[in-house]
This record gives sequence, structure tokens and C-alpha cells, in this order.
Amino acid sequence: MADMAIASTQDADAIRAEIRAMGRAAKAATARLATTPPEAKTRALRAAAAAIRADQADILAENAKDMAFGKAKGLTPALLDRLELNPARIEAMAQGLDDIAELPDPVGAVTAEWTRPNGLRIARVRTPLGVIGVIYESRPNVTADAGALCLKAGNAVILRGGSESIHSSTRIADCLRAGLREAGLPEDAVQIVRTRDRAAVGALLTEPEFIDVIVPRGGKSLIQRVMDEARVPVFAHLEGLCHVYLHTAADPRKAQEIAWNAKMRRTGVCGSAETLLVDRAVAGVLIPPIAARLIEAGCEIRGDEVVRALVPEAVPATEQDWLTEYLDAILSIRVVDGLDAAIAHIERYGSHHTDSIVTEDQAAADAFLKRVDSAIVMHNASTQFADGGEFGMGAEIGISTGRMHARGPVGAEQLTSFKYVVRGTGQTRP
Amino acid sequence: MADMAIASTQDADAIRAEIRAMGRAAKAATARLATTPPEAKTRALRAAAAAIRADQADILAENAKDMAFGKAKGLTPALLDRLELNPARIEAMAQGLDDIAELPDPVGAVTAEWTRPNGLRIARVRTPLGVIGVIYESRPNVTADAGALCLKAGNAVILRGGSESIHSSTRIADCLRAGLREAGLPEDAVQIVRTRDRAAVGALLTEPEFIDVIVPRGGKSLIQRVMDEARVPVFAHLEGLCHVYLHTAADPRKAQEIAWNAKMRRTGVCGSAETLLVDRAVAGVLIPPIAARLIEAGCEIRGDEVVRALVPEAVPATEQDWLTEYLDAILSIRVVDGLDAAIAHIERYGSHHTDSIVTEDQAAADAFLKRVDSAIVMHNASTQFADGGEFGMGAEIGISTGRMHARGPVGAEQLTSFKYVVRGTGQTRP
Repeated sequence: MADMAIASTQDADAIRAEIRAMGRAAKAATARLATTPPEAKTRALRAAAAAIRADQADILAENAKDMAFGKAKGLTPALLDRLELNPARIEAMAQGLDDIAELPDPVGAVTAEWTRPNGLRIARVRTPLGVIGVIYESRPNVTADAGALCLKAGNAVILRGGSESIHSSTRIADCLRAGLREAGLPEDAVQIVRTRDRAAVGALLTEPEFIDVIVPRGGKSLIQRVMDEARVPVFAHLEGLCHVYLHTAADPRKAQEIAWNAKMRRTGVCGSAETLLVDRAVAGVLIPPIAARLIEAGCEIRGDEVVRALVPEAVPATEQDWLTEYLDAILSIRVVDGLDAAIAHIERYGSHHTDSIVTEDQAAADAFLKRVDSAIVMHNASTQFADGGEFGMGAEIGISTGRMHARGPVGAEQLTSFKYVVRGTGQTRP
Repeated sequence: MADMAIASTQDADAIRAEIRAMGRAAKAATARLATTPPEAKTRALRAAAAAIRADQADILAENAKDMAFGKAKGLTPALLDRLELNPARIEAMAQGLDDIAELPDPVGAVTAEWTRPNGLRIARVRTPLGVIGVIYESRPNVTADAGALCLKAGNAVILRGGSESIHSSTRIADCLRAGLREAGLPEDAVQIVRTRDRAAVGALLTEPEFIDVIVPRGGKSLIQRVMDEARVPVFAHLEGLCHVYLHTAADPRKAQEIAWNAKMRRTGVCGSAETLLVDRAVAGVLIPPIAARLIEAGCEIRGDEVVRALVPEAVPATEQDWLTEYLDAILSIRVVDGLDAAIAHIERYGSHHTDSIVTEDQAAADAFLKRVDSAIVMHNASTQFADGGEFGMGAEIGISTGRMHARGPVGAEQLTSFKYVVRGTGQTRP
């Protein structure tokens, strides 16, 4: 694979054959990785970090090719910024690898253990998941983050970055492979697709024999395509349509700080709030100061009739607004009649990502936390905490709103499977 | 749904519309079930058990219709036996419901809990999985078992039994619904497809909006169809091609008892052994007595050259034998050169279900348990222990060889999802 040229062939059959060959090599690598001692994986990750630092000039040179390609293609300044590497960003990538190296090794951990009356001792033990396909867009640093996290959990990974970042990503992947080599591990544990042809994505999504799970990282259209076409499980969320609900018994200061932070800390992340729900009894007190601060900062307010009566600058919110993940400095605000109405709104319009209640009433908080069926439910905290790092997982490959296997932030532990180990002394079944 | 006649229509669109309507009703039921206190589910299960006992005569009458249909259709005696109910089998079904009622409720259990430096308290809490579709064949008792286990974990279930058992299964499902009614729970938490048309299976497999997971119960052709066509996750195993490996340091008595039990206790279950691997150094001592006892009991032996030299009655084993789940009184035996060769054989030919090593050498056992990548790996125990009841799970809906979410025996706990509950005191993210 290593010397395959970056190609733009249109031959879908050849691309599928190449993906299958990568899948086979990845499967072979997993057999060795599964029983690799933790120290070897740590060594590989540290060596990869060192390679990234040592190869900074090369990586920057490859990134310059991508930037030239991106400019010629007319990428927006925002996309070019995501694509661009500089010494600080390269150091951050290397540091990320060192951080992942330091995380506890999830493989081999015993998550349950019991003894049966007949003396059989049963343990449930974490194992690697297998081969993970990661499909992402322009950020080259995903190559290092995702590759390292998969490796930490003993998985092989097949990376497929955006076509704009192919030179940078390939060079970074080479550093990960160098780290594996140095630690005496199979370098095909990290492979990267070296063609810009989109047929490679289609092939990755439809080879359940070789790929155990797909993690897409990127915008909604990428995620939607992956979810529609995948014949393998997908860890992802399509949208983060998060809510903050200000209950009648909300502390006004907490309400204001959490509403502000949930919307404005960063508006483009999946954990940013899109809709603020406010109990009718406290709408008149809470909404005006919150809206004033947001408007002052350039945030647009879209509200129902009650909100517009309280906030003259607010524009009318339509049904479509409750369904929209703005990922921008826009907040829809709706007045509701209590907990049941708030939960009903969230269940109807939300995306089961992250939702928060602000209240000093413990019973109301408990009911909200129990009844709202989202991957993350919060009490008196900002939805922007929806993040593997903030959860203490060290790093995350993404956030999943699926109900199976991985839900919420997906860190190294969530990239594992498990098996049952049964120890006997000659037991036979009656 | 309740008064829809048992039909054999060929209108696939109407069937799909019906399945979607059932899915919608099931989703609505889950919203209430998710927050149902454990006592209500226990009450529903006990009431269902009582209804099954009270309605014994009715159930037998419906079963007589199925038996007449089955005989007219020319079902084999074995299949007719699976289909047939009698008072003892009906009581066993009711007792099964009472047993599941007694199991600990998995919903709401906190499986991890930690506090972040900023004071956020994070808990991972079990929640129901959602709507489970169960597709099975002729045994009517699966209706009660699977329905009850899904309900225990707070899930709604859509049952689709075999066309031969439709009268019996429908009547049993009515008892489960009566139990739900009596406990004040939504009866659409248990629904059964009331058409024999196979288009219903196709519809169940391809409605990810309404069905969260499919559990197929039956023969290989059913499982294969489900795996091929499903657009939703599947908990299943296609085959149980289980191995017993007799290591050089095997205790001869344990070796003989485990080999015998793993093959002969019941030959038609997924945990029965199909291939015996024996280290060359001990083949001459171990194989003859084991084979003699098996042959005496009517078991056919297929072996490699070494085996045939030791066992004159053995027929030659072909490559195909190593790949075959006999589910019958046939055992293939192969002589191997040590642990690595045994593991290589299992990885190449096995189905990642259950594999056991017999040895007194702890290091060899540990290596086998670590390196064999199967849902269940055993040391000095019979593979026939591969069963949720034997694992102490109380009951199982099946055994999964998938690597995601559910692996090994699937009991009530494995039919749950989880969410993260974050409790703060006003934290915002820097």
C-alpha cells in the first residue's frame, strides 16, 4: 500500500479491490494487536508523536500542496482555516498522541466477574472491536486523533480523509505507521486511502466482512450519506439539536450563565444549544436579560409570540426553527407550560444528543433526567460540556446518538468489544 | 391491531403500512415503558403468567389448529414436536414468565459514576433499547420468553412467529397483552404480526425508524436471510461451530468427560461441539477411549489420518468437515501440533461462538483464553454451558456472535441501552 500513488482513477472495481486488500491487511493486523501488551501500543503512540515533531517541515510542505489545491478549488476561508497546519497545530497533534499514550489501556479490563453455583468462574473482558473505518473531511489532525484512539483500543483503522487534505493526511498517517514499526507492531494497523475518488467511501461502507464499524466525522451531508449507504454499523450523530430548559424554579443567575454559554461559547459545535425553552411563569423575568446579552453579542433571537412581546428585536420563530440546528449565532426561544410540555417539545423536535434543565427543584430535575431520552441529559450545566475530553475520557472520536453499543462521547473504551471468559475445573452440563 | 384477522394477503404495501403502524404504536409504548417503575413490569409479567395458566384450554385449542395445519403441510415429526403444546409445556411457559418477573430490573442501574474536577457528576445509566423485532419459527413458547424478556428491559416488542404456529403464538401474545393491561401498562408494548405473508418479515427488517434491533430465532436459513436483508442491527449467531481443544497437559478424565458432554448432551444446540482438536503428543492416549464411547453411543467420527489410524471406524474428514456445524451426532477430530496450531484452526474455521481448552497448564489456558477471539472462551468446561441460564442471566433471547453491543448470551441486561446523566451546580464551559 505504502507506495501506491495518489490517484484519481474512476475505476470503481479497482478501488473496491484496493479497499478489500486494505481490509484484509487490517484484519491481519488486528489478530496481532489484540494480544499486544499495553506498553507496545504506548511506545508506538509516543514514537508517532516524535515522528510528527521530527517531520514537521515535511508535513508543512505537504500541507502547502493541499492549501494550493484548496485555494484553486475556491474553498471558503473557514474551510481553508480547517485545512491549514502550522507549527503550533502540528505540536498540538503530537501532544494529542502523547496524551492518548498516557490513557489507561481499555483492552483486557474485566468489566464483570461472578461465580456460578457449579463453580464456573465467568468474567466479561474487554477486547478490541476490530477494524474501524474513519471517514472525515478537511481537518488533517483527525488523522492523528482518530488513528491514535483506534490504536489505543487495539483496533486497526482505515482512514479516508477529505480530498483537499490528502497530502497532509497521508504524511501524518505515515508518522503513525512509523511509530507502529518502531514499536514492532504491524504498520497496517493504520492505513489511509490514497485516492481522491469518492468510490472509496462507497466501498468502505459496504464491506462488512472487513470493516466492523464506520465513524464519520464531518458535516451533515457526509453523515447522512454514510448513514444511508452503510451496510456496517455507524457511530455518529446526524445533528446536535440541543435544548436548554429554564424551569420555573431556575436560579436566575445560573439560567443566564448557562443559556449564554450553551449558545455562545462556540456556536459551531454539536453541543451548542439551538433552542431555549422557558417556563411561562418565569418568562417575563428570565428572557429579557438573557436576550439582551445575546443580542448585544450579535446573536439573532427567534421567538414565539410571548418572546416577541418581551424582546422587540426577536423575529417570529416558525415550526422549521424548532427543527433547525443553526450551528450559528441564532437562538430560538419558546415559552412552555411546565416540565411535561418542555419534555414533549424536546422529544418531538430534538435530536437525542444533549439536553439540559436549569432548576433548583430536585424532583423536577430528576424527572427531566429520567424522562428525556437523549444520549446526554444534564442538570444545571451547559450543553457545551458534551465532549469526551470534558467527560474525562481523555479524547473522543466523536459523539454518537445511536442507541447501540456506543452512545454519547466515544472514547477508547467505547471502541472496544468484549468476550466472556469461563474458567472451570472440568464441569460438564447436566 | 387486536381485531385484525389472520390473513394471507399478497399486498406488500398494505403489509408494510401495517408494520409501520405497529412500529409507531410500539414507539409510543416505549415512551411510557421507559419510566415505568419495576413493580409495574413485574405485575404485568405475573399477570401474563396467570393469564396463560387460566387460558390453557383456549391455548390448546388454538394449538390444535396449528397442529392440523402442520400435519396437512407435511411437517416432519421433529417440527411437529416443536410446535406442539401440552399442559406441561404451557405451565413451563407460565413459570418462565414468573422467573423473568423475579429477575433484577436492569433499567435505571448506574453502571459507572464519576466526578470531574469542575464538580460535574457524571453517571452512565441503563435505559431501554427501544423497539425490538423478534422473528422466529415454529416454537410457540418463544412468544412468551422473548416477549417477557424484552418487556423486562422496558422495550416494546413486535413478534413475528412462524406461519405454522400463528394461532398458538397469537393466543399467547394476547395473554401478555392482558398482563400489560392489568398492570396499567400500554398493551402495544407487545404486538404480534397476524399475517402469514412473508412480506411482513421484509418490512420488519427495513424500518430503522421504528425498529431498533432484530433478534432472529431459528435455523440457519432464517438467520442468513435476516442478516442479508436487515437495515437495522441484528443480535444473532449464524452458526455455533464450537471447538474443544485437548492440550498436551489435559487431564485425561476431564478431557473425556468434557468432549463427551460438549458433543452428546444435546447435539442440536448451538453450544454443542463440532470439532475436537487434540495435541499430537497425547492423541494416542486420549482419542481411542473418547472415540470408543462416542461410537458406542451412535456418534459418527470423521478424522484426519492420525485419527483414522487410532480409530478404525472413523471416516476421512474433508476440508468441508472443519467448516460444518453438524447439529447432529457427528464429530470431526483433528490432531494438531500445539496451542498455536489449535488457535489457528479455530480462527480459520470457527464461528466465534464458544471454544474450550482442556489443560492443567495455566499458562496455556491463559494464552488460549486471551487469543481466541470468540464470544465465549472456556477452560476445562463443556461448551454446552453457552447459555444465558447457565451464565446466571436468568433467561436469554439468544446468543450473539456480533462484536457490537450484545455478544454472547443476550439476557435482559443486554437488551438495554444507556445514557449519560450529568449533574451540575451551574457549570459553564470555559
